[in-house]
Amino acid sequence: MGARVGLIGAGIMGADHARILSSGIGGAVLAAVHDADSARARQVADACGGTQLYDDPQALIADAGIDAVLVASPDETHAALVLACIAQGKPVLVEKPLAATLDECRAIVAAETRGGRRLVQVGYMRRFDPGYRMMKAALAEGRLGPPLFLHCVHRNAVAPHWLTNELVIANSATHEIDIARYLLGEEFASVSVISPRASSRAPTRQPQLIVLETASGVVVDVEAFVDAQYGYDVRAELVCENGTVALAPNPPLATRLAGQDSHALHADWRGRFADAYRDQIGAWLVSLGTDRPAGSSAWDGYAASVTADAALQAWRTRSRTTVQLDTMPEFYRNA
Amino acid sequence: MGARVGLIGAGIMGADHARILSSGIGGAVLAAVHDADSARARQVADACGGTQLYDDPQALIADAGIDAVLVASPDETHAALVLACIAQGKPVLVEKPLAATLDECRAIVAAETRGGRRLVQVGYMRRFDPGYRMMKAALAEGRLGPPLFLHCVHRNAVAPHWLTNELVIANSATHEIDIARYLLGEEFASVSVISPRASSRAPTRQPQLIVLETASGVVVDVEAFVDAQYGYDVRAELVCENGTVALAPNPPLATRLAGQDSHALHADWRGRFADAYRDQIGAWLVSLGTDRPAGSSAWDGYAASVTADAALQAWRTRSRTTVQLDTMPEFYRNA
Amino acid sequence: MGARVGLIGAGIMGADHARILSSGIGGAVLAAVHDADSARARQVADACGGTQLYDDPQALIADAGIDAVLVASPDETHAALVLACIAQGKPVLVEKPLAATLDECRAIVAAETRGGRRLVQVGYMRRFDPGYRMMKAALAEGRLGPPLFLHCVHRNAVAPHWLTNELVIANSATHEIDIARYLLGEEFASVSVISPRASSRAPTRQPQLIVLETASGVVVDVEAFVDAQYGYDVRAELVCENGTVALAPNPPLATRLAGQDSHALHADWRGRFADAYRDQIGAWLVSLGTDRPAGSSAWDGYAASVTADAALQAWRTRSRTTVQLDTMPEFYRNA
Amino acid sequence: MGARVGLIGAGIMGADHARILSSGIGGAVLAAVHDADSARARQVADACGGTQLYDDPQALIADAGIDAVLVASPDETHAALVLACIAQGKPVLVEKPLAATLDECRAIVAAETRGGRRLVQVGYMRRFDPGYRMMKAALAEGRLGPPLFLHCVHRNAVAPHWLTNELVIANSATHEIDIARYLLGEEFASVSVISPRASSRAPTRQPQLIVLETASGVVVDVEAFVDAQYGYDVRAELVCENGTVALAPNPPLATRLAGQDSHALHADWRGRFADAYRDQIGAWLVSLGTDRPAGSSAWDGYAASVTADAALQAWRTRSRTTVQLDTMPEFYRNA
Repeated sequence: MGARVGLIGAGIMGADHARILSSGIGGAVLAAVHDADSARARQVADACGGTQLYDDPQALIADAGIDAVLVASPDETHAALVLACIAQGKPVLVEKPLAATLDECRAIVAAETRGGRRLVQVGYMRRFDPGYRMMKAALAEGRLGPPLFLHCVHRNAVAPHWLTNELVIANSATHEIDIARYLLGEEFASVSVISPRASSRAPTRQPQLIVLETASGVVVDVEAFVDAQYGYDVRAELVCENGTVALAPNPPLATRLAGQDSHALHADWRGRFADAYRDQIGAWLVSLGTDRPAGSSAWDGYAASVTADAALQAWRTRSRTTVQLDTMPEFYRNA
Repeated sequence: MGARVGLIGAGIMGADHARILSSGIGGAVLAAVHDADSARARQVADACGGTQLYDDPQALIADAGIDAVLVASPDETHAALVLACIAQGKPVLVEKPLAATLDECRAIVAAETRGGRRLVQVGYMRRFDPGYRMMKAALAEGRLGPPLFLHCVHRNAVAPHWLTNELVIANSATHEIDIARYLLGEEFASVSVISPRASSRAPTRQPQLIVLETASGVVVDVEAFVDAQYGYDVRAELVCENGTVALAPNPPLATRLAGQDSHALHADWRGRFADAYRDQIGAWLVSLGTDRPAGSSAWDGYAASVTADAALQAWRTRSRTTVQLDTMPEFYRNA
Repeated sequence: MGARVGLIGAGIMGADHARILSSGIGGAVLAAVHDADSARARQVADACGGTQLYDDPQALIADAGIDAVLVASPDETHAALVLACIAQGKPVLVEKPLAATLDECRAIVAAETRGGRRLVQVGYMRRFDPGYRMMKAALAEGRLGPPLFLHCVHRNAVAPHWLTNELVIANSATHEIDIARYLLGEEFASVSVISPRASSRAPTRQPQLIVLETASGVVVDVEAFVDAQYGYDVRAELVCENGTVALAPNPPLATRLAGQDSHALHADWRGRFADAYRDQIGAWLVSLGTDRPAGSSAWDGYAASVTADAALQAWRTRSRTTVQLDTMPEFYRNA
Repeated sequence: MGARVGLIGAGIMGADHARILSSGIGGAVLAAVHDADSARARQVADACGGTQLYDDPQALIADAGIDAVLVASPDETHAALVLACIAQGKPVLVEKPLAATLDECRAIVAAETRGGRRLVQVGYMRRFDPGYRMMKAALAEGRLGPPLFLHCVHRNAVAPHWLTNELVIANSATHEIDIARYLLGEEFASVSVISPRASSRAPTRQPQLIVLETASGVVVDVEAFVDAQYGYDVRAELVCENGTVALAPNPPLATRLAGQDSHALHADWRGRFADAYRDQIGAWLVSLGTDRPAGSSAWDGYAASVTADAALQAWRTRSRTTVQLDTMPEFYRNA
């Protein structure tokens, strides 16, 4: 029998997770859904069929008929929900970020460590993207030699009006920070931010160049530009001592029309990372019961948040800022 | 509850289908397996778990606990198995070709038509490849204008020693014939074959240039070369009155090393068409019970075999050969 | 001192050759120009400076102050002009085709052979295109193994209204025939033509698929489509026993805008083959006085015309046609 | 009659310039050559024919038979030679950098301004590369919108053992600084340098990430890595408010062999920028006598050196450093 999954949060991301789950992946069943907006919850439940609605997310977590929980509610609610899952001994896949504050992240890490079971997976889905996986495999294979640079580009076509300068760094950059930690297998030591002028498309919000240095001396630069207009575009080139590897995420069709030889670009992350979102849930379902979540751990979620916080500090002070992590519990060794 | 699928044939293709099914796709269960080689059947059953072995494929088909059948046994066995599924009213996904002879294909079409339910899907999986689907969508969208040429390339790295000249045409070309019919939405009227000398790698076997003309005057040329050494490579360019679209199936990583900027190519069809195989089974499972199989119909399977047969005739006689199809039963209209 | 060149024909191609010559390439001087339309001749002369006008092309050829002649006048005039150059012992670069009829081609070959000096170069400029040169070098290098197929595409954006079905074959295909002979180093044995319906853009003119077989059994297919609308596009893929090489003629800029990742295509042959035209004249100037013209010889010009003639015959009769060449004079051995 | 050019410096770059000049470009003649190593000078002179040797470079400059001078001697000699050319009123194309020190650069700017004739062109040849020219044209065309970022990569396969950390910045970065000023049309305001660890291939020499900010707030980042092993690779992506343009400098041939679909990369700058070097000299020759050199002016040479100097300072102090330029003389307005 497949796992019975409960979903908390039925917004854009939650609805997309529900769609993947109800496709029958891994034999799972979307058994329960909660959203603060009950109409939204009902819409998702109806689309899936046989899904029960919960008014209270804690009741959903506590329900013995629910095997695992997927959290896609607002950031501020993450900590309480994840802590409840840990308390109930239930595996939880929580959308990034792990929690809204560093103290909450620390509390989750502490609770999971105390509990002695690895139950938390953070939804940094890029770790399941075929391109990044091939990049990590290419690095491990050895012919490229040790890494020196990782050049990253993170562009959204359009950003919501409420997105602030702070969120450009905190929201976009955490994806880049997590995937860089995944690829390089080490922590960041410091970070600087260099800010171009704002685009006239979004005069109150700057694009950013975030430059991070790892403990061993690899330099990672990230262009974060959430008003790029032309499409959603995530690029990465890993430069090693003997050669480089780069994402080449072109869709599988080339068109020659009206004087141009072109590839269509994705409009947003759902198209670009469709495989990653599906494989993330697939791997999570396979991992249930093993205490070995497949993607980012609670520690990874904490580390990404600490690093993003240092980036914010670097931007505010216009100076190179040290990234200061707590000591990693043994518990997460070889996570 | 998901469908309970029975698998007949546990060779390379059957084992791959079993792997996809047992990943929990569409909530399905691989409930039964038969292979003439019972050790091979057991191996597949063991890998999936909870799968029952059948000595007699007809018993498997007749078992009321089996909802649908997947046939991946030798070509010569297809007709009897598919006819049994039709007799039992069970949906069947049969590996290409539909059957070993044209008369068998006709018998299946006749039986299905008589039965009045569309139960047969033929495993021309390219109809589920994202690239070909985007190509068909681009054509339908209209800006390209009507089609004039379709240039196809079908290359295998290495072919088994027993593969004959006849099989180069019959085996490889049927995939191209089916996908061209899918893209263009019409039948072929005639076919010619022009043969280069054989490669010294396989001196008894020629590569071929198969040139087909559709009823409306589109020219489709297919290079079929099963000893191409460097990799598995399937290409297609559709040339229309205003522009062209071409498959651009590069893997998502580019490497710069030792003086080369390169993409790795696939070794065989399983890597290249992994998405197509998965989506073919996914769509088939969704279609169960609807009498509307998602991919190639029995008629499509028959039409591909007739066209390939004409190509063989053209090759033997070195002359342009007419493709002569029976009248399509109304039953398959809008299939 | 650089060569003093006389130009006969000041139309589109002649004016372009004049522009290249007057850029000072190889230290040459455009010393004389003739055109049946004297205003057109004057325009070219004025653009270059110091260029003398001739009413009579034969007088231009006979002028002792002219070292070499470039013929870009109408096809019908080629034979008389080239024969006059041979009679005067003057090197001549003649636009393709060598002459308007096969008998004229034969007369030129005979005259040059009798004269004992190699004076004639035919303007099949693709032999100077960096891509084709690299393709020939790659083949010679050996790792690819012997060739089996050459797939060619020849597309113009728009063709003049007077261009006939016959000229689609005779005009476009000669370029492909010459470059295939250059790449493969052998003659064609037979040719077939398969014709799709016409494009609605040019209902009186069909695109064509011309399929040629060489003496050793290489198959060369050429899509000739002069109304392709979207741009000028010349492609070639050489398929060998171990691998393939293909032209990849993308301009050096990639643009991401409005949802597309695109390269601009060339509008016509002058942009696409700008390097080839320049290097053709450069190599010709270097060869002056050596009796070793650098590109296509009179024999090559004759062979291309014979092969195109057989293609026309194949199209008219809808049947495979033998290519029948005269015996090549020893004189052209190792040309 | 073409210009009579004198060459000072017959090393790798000088010999390459001599080769271009002696191809007859622009009708020019390589009339004179000097090198401190007279054997090297003789070698170049012999290869060209009719070229006179000079023991004293000042005598070459002073020779009334020499119309223009090309300086490719060691950096330390540039200032004296360029000043002599200005004194003689002779156009001079000097290899980059303009001079070895900022004071020498200033002296040249002052002398040229006093003289009232624009005679100096600095050999930043990238301004003649088709890719960069198309990039500038695309920006001017307007659809891309104003620029925000310019991401640059400058990689050499191998560097000579004597190349220091300082020269990685001073030598490589000046090319990037000049081309960025050309593309963006403005000066730099500040510069930071972030240094990864050194490659084990060259343990005493670090690659660098140089981050520059222009007066208007465009951020330019340059990866300078002179030990990249795999090939010579120069990349640039200009990110604007509506879209991006990037160099796509692939050679015109794609190879599929041994499991890879690949393009060969260039081994060094001579292959990569062959067109740029030729067109630089061609444009220079056309400009002779106009007092409007075609490429980088003495002011551009000075500005590049000042900016590189600030980058060195930023690297030494590990802090963001202001770029401080003198006031540009009116004389260079619209240069």
